[in-house]
Amino acid sequence: MRIPFVSPARCRIAILGFGTVGSAVARRLTDPHSPHALQLTHVVDRRAGEKSRMLPASSRVRWTTEIDEVLTADVDVVVETVGGVEPAANWVRSALVAGKSVVTANKQVVARHGAALLALAERQGRQLRFEAAVGGAMPIVRTVGDGLAGDRITRIAAILNGTTNAVLSRMEATGCPLDDAVADARARGYAEADPTLDLDGADAAAKLSVLCALAFGLRVDPDAIPTRSTATIVPADFDRARLTGGTIRQLAHAEFDYTASTLTAWVAPAVVPRGSVFSRTTGAQNAAVISGEYSGDITIAGAGAGGDATAVAILSDVLAIARDRAAIVPAPVLTSDFTLQTSDFRLAEAV
Amino acid sequence: MRIPFVSPARCRIAILGFGTVGSAVARRLTDPHSPHALQLTHVVDRRAGEKSRMLPASSRVRWTTEIDEVLTADVDVVVETVGGVEPAANWVRSALVAGKSVVTANKQVVARHGAALLALAERQGRQLRFEAAVGGAMPIVRTVGDGLAGDRITRIAAILNGTTNAVLSRMEATGCPLDDAVADARARGYAEADPTLDLDGADAAAKLSVLCALAFGLRVDPDAIPTRSTATIVPADFDRARLTGGTIRQLAHAEFDYTASTLTAWVAPAVVPRGSVFSRTTGAQNAAVISGEYSGDITIAGAGAGGDATAVAILSDVLAIARDRAAIVPAPVLTSDFTLQTSDFRLAEAV
Repeated sequence: MRIPFVSPARCRIAILGFGTVGSAVARRLTDPHSPHALQLTHVVDRRAGEKSRMLPASSRVRWTTEIDEVLTADVDVVVETVGGVEPAANWVRSALVAGKSVVTANKQVVARHGAALLALAERQGRQLRFEAAVGGAMPIVRTVGDGLAGDRITRIAAILNGTTNAVLSRMEATGCPLDDAVADARARGYAEADPTLDLDGADAAAKLSVLCALAFGLRVDPDAIPTRSTATIVPADFDRARLTGGTIRQLAHAEFDYTASTLTAWVAPAVVPRGSVFSRTTGAQNAAVISGEYSGDITIAGAGAGGDATAVAILSDVLAIARDRAAIVPAPVLTSDFTLQTSDFRLAEAV
Repeated sequence: MRIPFVSPARCRIAILGFGTVGSAVARRLTDPHSPHALQLTHVVDRRAGEKSRMLPASSRVRWTTEIDEVLTADVDVVVETVGGVEPAANWVRSALVAGKSVVTANKQVVARHGAALLALAERQGRQLRFEAAVGGAMPIVRTVGDGLAGDRITRIAAILNGTTNAVLSRMEATGCPLDDAVADARARGYAEADPTLDLDGADAAAKLSVLCALAFGLRVDPDAIPTRSTATIVPADFDRARLTGGTIRQLAHAEFDYTASTLTAWVAPAVVPRGSVFSRTTGAQNAAVISGEYSGDITIAGAGAGGDATAVAILSDVLAIARDRAAIVPAPVLTSDFTLQTSDFRLAEAV
């Protein structure tokens, strides 16, 4: 982290959830490179007792199992890394009501409650930031919501699930069946015990819903996005893809026709051409091609998973809040007045 | 442009310079898709008289040859697209002193006077934004300065000059001599009448200097960055590169050793491996690989030149200012306390 752009004002931070991501953030905040202004003061975890040994005693962090303790404490920013919709959404809401800014890595909370929570944050004069919810360290939330705000984005095609991508690129490289590739991903720490939400597309659909809000201003229920599971892909599918000069990746795709107010969105295993950015995306990497009416295609790629990479996105958000605690972040006004096209759902030969 | 994230507060805009970029910004601001809050009120150009016909009369823009008229007018944001160091730097300074926020596309001004101008902007409680100064529509300023602020960036390798890239990728594709490729780039509108600053590396060195400030917190004189000209590249160089499985691109490279406080930086034609993101970057595209200690490699690529693409970066900056006119943007504190290593300057075989 670079100190130059950090305001010297003290910023007290609480982390909710001490799993892979939460502990990576805690390690960064307690290491000597961390700007002095950023102080980790609280960790909330239901196994606070046994986990408290995982940080040096010198860090003087208060460990607790009670979110309420953070809500009433002198804390500026709450970092939510709990995952799942509840109680995480309720904790984010409570933190904003208590006057804290919030940084979350939780795509489900942002996809389902983001607009309401952002409106709450604006009313409270606080910030809700969520770069880590989509694309790990790849700063796609800023790119779509801020860096390309001056364009009219028409299309997003992306690899948004690192686990599934690690499985598919392993199958491609070794010819092994899906179960073996899943076991390999698990051994490398890329996959949970149950990777169903990854393979079936629900994880990528939640992230795509967040991107549709940022890119097109649309309120898209993640459950309404058609998905086709990657779990049924077999080695023979790769052989067929190879014959047409391609390979297979789980793609998340969204395209908005502004004239017809029609959104085409899906998550599915798709044949991607060899040499395309998607075929070259292997392991737990993520990649996205964002098409704008005026800027053409912008490509972005990087580590899509892992504690350290996700912690970069979280800490960048914390630094943005620390820089300007009184920043006004207007909540988006999303529209539901569009047609979600589901008939066109297919295994597209994406670029 | 998307209205959702724009504050409804009126934002009055003056454009300095009505060339390729300035006119593209003006067209966007006067087209029906532009958010009502953004109002183009002034254009300053030394040929204001004859150019004023290029915008519809209905746009009610005030054309003038006098910067002073803008300084005393009810204008919120000044967009500087004049280019060159002077008078542009002085105009940016005057606009900030007059209480305007400034958006500039001018890499020379940012590279040479950025730190002082950002400090002035902070004192004035105004903003100076410069996404368009590096990488065209590719949001690399935000990615390095904001999106990856939570990492320790160790290395940047990038194609930052669209003109030179168009020339080299044309030579690669057709086997033609450099002069023919320059003529072709000129015919396509990618090259100025005199592309010396592009080919010799001065343009990319200015952009690299800006990135070194953002990534490493270093004050790097762009003239101190070693450059080797691309103007001497001949078709036989491509043949040799091909034998080693590569091709030639003008690369800008910066690597900072935090322990030794040593910066290695250069701009030169370099052999890049086939299949790398750089070899796949053709025409006037730009690309960058940013390496962080915690996030690994982040790749970003997109249109590096052209009025419409550059206008996207400018308008995104204008929207960020319009969203929060009172935002506090602390100026960077850059250090000159480092060694710029020039002995290691070579035609590197970059990744």
